[in-house]
Amino acid sequence: MAAAAPPPPPTPAPEPSEAAAGGHVLFTRIRLATASDVPHIHKLIHQMAVFERLTHLFSATEASLAATLFSPAVQPFHSFTVFLLEASGSPFRASAESDSVSSFEPVTKEVRLERPVEDPERERFGSVEDATVVGFVLFFPNYSSFLGKAGFYVEDVFVRECYRRRGMGRMLLSAVAKQAVKMGYGRVEWVVLDWNVNAIRFYQRLGARLLEEWRVCRLSGEALSAYGTDL
Amino acid sequence: MAAAAPPPPPTPAPEPSEAAAGGHVLFTRIRLATASDVPHIHKLIHQMAVFERLTHLFSATEASLAATLFSPAVQPFHSFTVFLLEASGSPFRASAESDSVSSFEPVTKEVRLERPVEDPERERFGSVEDATVVGFVLFFPNYSSFLGKAGFYVEDVFVRECYRRRGMGRMLLSAVAKQAVKMGYGRVEWVVLDWNVNAIRFYQRLGARLLEEWRVCRLSGEALSAYGTDL
Repeated sequence: MAAAAPPPPPTPAPEPSEAAAGGHVLFTRIRLATASDVPHIHKLIHQMAVFERLTHLFSATEASLAATLFSPAVQPFHSFTVFLLEASGSPFRASAESDSVSSFEPVTKEVRLERPVEDPERERFGSVEDATVVGFVLFFPNYSSFLGKAGFYVEDVFVRECYRRRGMGRMLLSAVAKQAVKMGYGRVEWVVLDWNVNAIRFYQRLGARLLEEWRVCRLSGEALSAYGTDL
Repeated sequence: MAAAAPPPPPTPAPEPSEAAAGGHVLFTRIRLATASDVPHIHKLIHQMAVFERLTHLFSATEASLAATLFSPAVQPFHSFTVFLLEASGSPFRASAESDSVSSFEPVTKEVRLERPVEDPERERFGSVEDATVVGFVLFFPNYSSFLGKAGFYVEDVFVRECYRRRGMGRMLLSAVAKQAVKMGYGRVEWVVLDWNVNAIRFYQRLGARLLEEWRVCRLSGEALSAYGTDL
């Protein structure tokens, strides 16, 4: 298992003796999601919509997520890809079942905490091996024609409320960046709301640059449907 | 052949008698690009870099484009996709060789012009059937987790200078929008520079909405490479 130490690491790697001395250790794992994770992914996306006060735009169902994210045509890293972040009070076993279906080796890390996380939804987000689903990142390839290279676009990165401010979002984004480097990709991109200064600072600390001049154009709903009428 | 009349059509469909009466007709075709089009695509991307005064960022080669856009793993519409727009003085034949390799039926259209286009690079951009390559659009799937649906992201749309202001860009974007509707996709998105008011007006006339609050974050170059060092 590879240790996920995002650059620059938020804290030095703890010595094993420190854990024995009484600090609380949370064991985390980032793995590739599979179709059986759809119910958790659906709940996480809904929580994200609630957090962003955009539930009126939320229409995804477990069925639509399963059909679009986990159809046989959807190859991880070459199409839509979901990493799940899980946490547990005990170490994850070295060999996870997801190893066999993809080239992605789960990334585990021990996170030192001052006190244990109180998770009111622990049972609702229960996963394999007594673990709990903490968050996710959804990404897919994009392309730079100037570079003649693929990259990754990060559509969502989300961590459940009780696990925030513990470096979890950074771990998820780092895992995407590492995978991009591994595949020889040229960029990792995502979007942020211009008034979300905390998020912007966080992304800049990760090494990202804000492209101030670009604006997103979107064709959707009836304006898009109109293009199908004269086919 | 399907007639490509983008909604709303810029002009009513011309009567055949009008063509006979002396108007200049340009026959256009939008088709899926193949690996054999790479030399033209490379030249078009380079012209785009010159137009945007970004040649210092241009490092794509014919080899890198061929490897990334036309590898066997790259399935049109499910990964990186290029539509080429060609023009000719005579009608395109109904059956193009690209029909057999994809589900995309080439879209042909007659464009009425006041005078013929003077194309100083006609030979350099010569294509099959005495046609000339005029422009391209490069796009690929993106994803909306709120909708639980895929969409298309348009990375580039480019028309060679002597063919501009004749509805060619609109034809290329319309072809992407139609394909999105055909596939049941929820959105077509792209980005535009905030000072490019002409482009913004053009996109808004197509029915697109500008997402004013969102900013693009990019992790690239050494800041990205650093994530690979502790794998």
